[in-house]
Amino acid sequence: MTAAQYSDADVDRFFDVAISLVERAGILVLHAFKQPSSKVTTKSSDTDLVTETDKAVEDLLIQGLSKEFPDHKFIGEESVSSGQKFELTDAPTWIIDPIDGTTNFVHRIPLLGICLGLVIEKQLKAGIVYNPISGDLYTAKHGKGAFKNGFPIRVSNTDALNKAVICTTLGEHNFKDHGEKYLDTALSNHRKVVLSGARGIRTFGCSSINMIYVAQGSIDAYIEYGLRCWDAAAAAVIVKEAGGYLIDPTGGPFNLMSRCLLCAGEEKLAKEISSLFTHAKFEPESEAVYY
Amino acid sequence: MTAAQYSDADVDRFFDVAISLVERAGILVLHAFKQPSSKVTTKSSDTDLVTETDKAVEDLLIQGLSKEFPDHKFIGEESVSSGQKFELTDAPTWIIDPIDGTTNFVHRIPLLGICLGLVIEKQLKAGIVYNPISGDLYTAKHGKGAFKNGFPIRVSNTDALNKAVICTTLGEHNFKDHGEKYLDTALSNHRKVVLSGARGIRTFGCSSINMIYVAQGSIDAYIEYGLRCWDAAAAAVIVKEAGGYLIDPTGGPFNLMSRCLLCAGEEKLAKEISSLFTHAKFEPESEAVYY
Repeated sequence: MTAAQYSDADVDRFFDVAISLVERAGILVLHAFKQPSSKVTTKSSDTDLVTETDKAVEDLLIQGLSKEFPDHKFIGEESVSSGQKFELTDAPTWIIDPIDGTTNFVHRIPLLGICLGLVIEKQLKAGIVYNPISGDLYTAKHGKGAFKNGFPIRVSNTDALNKAVICTTLGEHNFKDHGEKYLDTALSNHRKVVLSGARGIRTFGCSSINMIYVAQGSIDAYIEYGLRCWDAAAAAVIVKEAGGYLIDPTGGPFNLMSRCLLCAGEEKLAKEISSLFTHAKFEPESEAVYY
Repeated sequence: MTAAQYSDADVDRFFDVAISLVERAGILVLHAFKQPSSKVTTKSSDTDLVTETDKAVEDLLIQGLSKEFPDHKFIGEESVSSGQKFELTDAPTWIIDPIDGTTNFVHRIPLLGICLGLVIEKQLKAGIVYNPISGDLYTAKHGKGAFKNGFPIRVSNTDALNKAVICTTLGEHNFKDHGEKYLDTALSNHRKVVLSGARGIRTFGCSSINMIYVAQGSIDAYIEYGLRCWDAAAAAVIVKEAGGYLIDPTGGPFNLMSRCLLCAGEEKLAKEISSLFTHAKFEPESEAVYY
């Protein structure tokens, strides 16, 4: 079957199986999150518990989907980290972050997401972000709206930075790879945001949470550099379907593989932020994937 | 009755009444948080809903406590904002932030706290922080430990910034009053934190949440400038009773009225941050209150 043959009904079938798997994965994450802290006191056992849970969640999702849909492909954070080839074809491909917000998970900060995005013919088709700690399940399919626990959600209508609460990147994640120049750009961007009179700046430590907060109108805009495709695939669909404006920070079309994104409730706000910022450039991780 | 006559049993009685009132206040806040967003679309109605709920919560707490304990005094964010005199005597005094994290509340970001701290003879005696959205109730009495939903909590044992996840101030709240010099100091401090190799930096937009995350070991340290006494009174007791190290950012003893604080799970980490930062100075809001 070629990619063009996949209908909306097919996407519905794929999606329903994915939802039931994500709910099972949530039980694993919640269980690990509630382990007594003595188990995560040392750095090495932190890593163990995280790696173990990350891997168990990714395996559960990949095995469950493969069993139902043997022709589906996967790009998972854990698989890629452990050396598996990053390969994107036209086949239905699930882009998986088993636990987005790993540091939050280790530190028992309840802001994290199990993320599952579906790409067919190199286009984003569906997204699921589930935070099993809060119990909030965010879902969207291309052209069908975005939902939180089954109820429709919508972005905010804040159209100017001086009325906005935004999430920004603050430099600590990219600094190690990109050096002091990157950090100074991030600080200079932050300075401009403050001078513009933004009402608030948040750093939740989890890109999928930042994005679903944009989708539900809690955060007015979010700009990020240096993320990986699995941090954004699922939530990108949710933001778009909630009426959000999603672009490359430079102002071009959003490309899931470009490692950067800017999203906002309103186009005007997104463009204001895009003009204000000095942009960092990252090597794309594969050929482009658009919404 | 003079202040010296208040025993632990008295504090217990005061505390039990306060807890039952905080739980009732939580219902008001949760109800307002769940209003359809159409009610908070415009800035003016934001303010109305917030002011209304803030005021209703503060009234409920003050009236309930006054009825049981007519000699108790109050310093409440809403009362002071609306012109009431800020007066601290030796009498049992409740320091109240009806909704700490107002912007989060307006934006439906579920990180906020109803905060109630008890000061007797200008010493902190008890603290309650309740997040009715997550349902988490944090409590502490002087010398009796700190609890989350009745279970003891304890700070982390991370003793170096290069292993720590911290909350810092990023300048946007104090910038309007303190100008670009303040902002540049905040950015320079942030730069030093990143260069030191901190594992993560978070900005949750709610000082009581930052502090209870330190108390439960989720955040390793938190440093803040420019806060008011009602942002910190309740959570300061919780951090201390959870084994935390709580000081003035300059390294001196913590003073609730100094408008600055630094807390950490470990003394060594607190001292590292204290040495690293360039400190901003704020006018104290009254004579000192120590733990």
